[in-house]
Amino acid sequence: MIFIDGLECGVYDREIFEELRAGQLSAIVNTVSFWEDAGETLDRLGLWRDLIRENSDLVTTARTAADVEAADAAGKTAIIMGSQGSDLLDGRLRYVELFHDLGLRVMQLTYNNQNSLGSSCYEAVDSGLARFGKEVVREMNAVGMLIDLSHVGNKTGLDTVDWSEQPVAITHANPSSLFPHARNKPDDLLRALAEKGGVLGLATYRNINGDWVESVDKWCELVKRTVDLIGIDHVAIGTDLGRKSGIPELNWMRMGRWTRTPNYGAGSAANPGKAKAVEWMADTTGFPVLAEALGRNGFAAGEVEAIMGGNWMRLYRTVFGG
Amino acid sequence: MIFIDGLECGVYDREIFEELRAGQLSAIVNTVSFWEDAGETLDRLGLWRDLIRENSDLVTTARTAADVEAADAAGKTAIIMGSQGSDLLDGRLRYVELFHDLGLRVMQLTYNNQNSLGSSCYEAVDSGLARFGKEVVREMNAVGMLIDLSHVGNKTGLDTVDWSEQPVAITHANPSSLFPHARNKPDDLLRALAEKGGVLGLATYRNINGDWVESVDKWCELVKRTVDLIGIDHVAIGTDLGRKSGIPELNWMRMGRWTRTPNYGAGSAANPGKAKAVEWMADTTGFPVLAEALGRNGFAAGEVEAIMGGNWMRLYRTVFGG
Repeated sequence: MIFIDGLECGVYDREIFEELRAGQLSAIVNTVSFWEDAGETLDRLGLWRDLIRENSDLVTTARTAADVEAADAAGKTAIIMGSQGSDLLDGRLRYVELFHDLGLRVMQLTYNNQNSLGSSCYEAVDSGLARFGKEVVREMNAVGMLIDLSHVGNKTGLDTVDWSEQPVAITHANPSSLFPHARNKPDDLLRALAEKGGVLGLATYRNINGDWVESVDKWCELVKRTVDLIGIDHVAIGTDLGRKSGIPELNWMRMGRWTRTPNYGAGSAANPGKAKAVEWMADTTGFPVLAEALGRNGFAAGEVEAIMGGNWMRLYRTVFGG
Repeated sequence: MIFIDGLECGVYDREIFEELRAGQLSAIVNTVSFWEDAGETLDRLGLWRDLIRENSDLVTTARTAADVEAADAAGKTAIIMGSQGSDLLDGRLRYVELFHDLGLRVMQLTYNNQNSLGSSCYEAVDSGLARFGKEVVREMNAVGMLIDLSHVGNKTGLDTVDWSEQPVAITHANPSSLFPHARNKPDDLLRALAEKGGVLGLATYRNINGDWVESVDKWCELVKRTVDLIGIDHVAIGTDLGRKSGIPELNWMRMGRWTRTPNYGAGSAANPGKAKAVEWMADTTGFPVLAEALGRNGFAAGEVEAIMGGNWMRLYRTVFGG
């Protein structure tokens, strides 16, 4: 069975790659950049190439769905390059194609702040997909880069689902009707996304799950309710795991260069540190455990396959090609 | 017969592409950047992609020798992306691979100034290939990017020929024993380059030719003497044509952002404007004329083929692959 983690954001090394193999992951989407500009993102892509070459017995890069299948057949985990922000464009439309050439396959339109593309889930007002955002969405469609709405504002998200000529993703979020949180998504957005063939990666990140992550069986109930809401073809996994990311990484995610004041995102002043790992998904070795739990909780074999990786594969094939 | 212009630096539009077709060019190396940094070079690569798409009935891009052959078979001119400077690296070794991914296939180690790689032909002292230069040369070898020494200083050039694991190019210069000029190359460098399988592209640029460009037949004598010097397998053409480049482009080439004083390069204060075009090579429609003249001046058919494009093809196949 193909297991895919639709979004992670850790600091990777050989130990984490060994975890990915122990978790039987065929692919993950990593986070190459948050607030990084073009030059900094190029640096990170360069470092990633070295890291993958140095660990080529465990991992490889995927630019197409076929690359994921080849990695799976070779017993390796495919790393799909993704970004949680669009600052890497430096405001240039043509960089979409160039970063696609360099392997970037997933890009979130905004991270936690409004930018020239649209608004984030943490802004007071979301005026929707902006002029440059419309250009970038169509450019991403043209080159085959998956649009991610996870941290994007709800109006911008709805506009994007409508404007995009390709299905889009929410790689790591939950339905806000099941756990109210700015980072989670309302039913109307999720239904619109599903109607256009998109996929929601349910997150195991504690701060946007509340009690649902208390046990793997309880989380399977969250999966079941989400499937009831938008259908079995549109629900997948995006853990949002941040293995080995520490205070410097957390500060960068929360503050970038745009503020001196911590912005806790899904955390809070009362809960300022890194969210406590979920026991049954402290790392990706939780994937086989989750697959087993889904079966135990009433999902048929084909449904488990769809949730654990099949739905991502279909979306990747549609958007990336191959 | 495959015609290749080993180096041009003009401002391109449909009219110039039509000239390339009229000149029966199978490939040219363009100049994507001089002093441009990474971001500016990405901009220029992006604009080039649009330009090639808009004129895809006339031109295409080549990343391999096979791409040049395919362009030739399709009656199109292949544009090979090149840079006359290495400022596009922003001092980062890993950018070599990334720009190679984006199609860059030729890079000159320095333009007219010493940089962190080595020295230029216009510096008073050339201390040779520097620490970063050694790293970049080996990285270019590894990814398959052709090293160009045309504006590079002679000691740095000799060091590079010696250090490089692949043959290198001087895409646009002449032997200084035939026309003394800082931009032209001494016999020892040319011989070393040839011994390692490299290629010299003889330039038709007036400022580094003197009387040799008075007529096409006279220039064939320059070709003949160069062949006597380094052998038929190592002599090719790199016109250095700058079609439609005007005062802004000339100022950028001469001054970049590093001085307020014009540095005339191969020109002079007494001869400050753009060099007058050579009558028989005012644009690339001079290529068939030159091929005919080489035959008339005693070169055998196979020799004409080698000079007009065959030697570049061999070098491209070796360095680019395909």
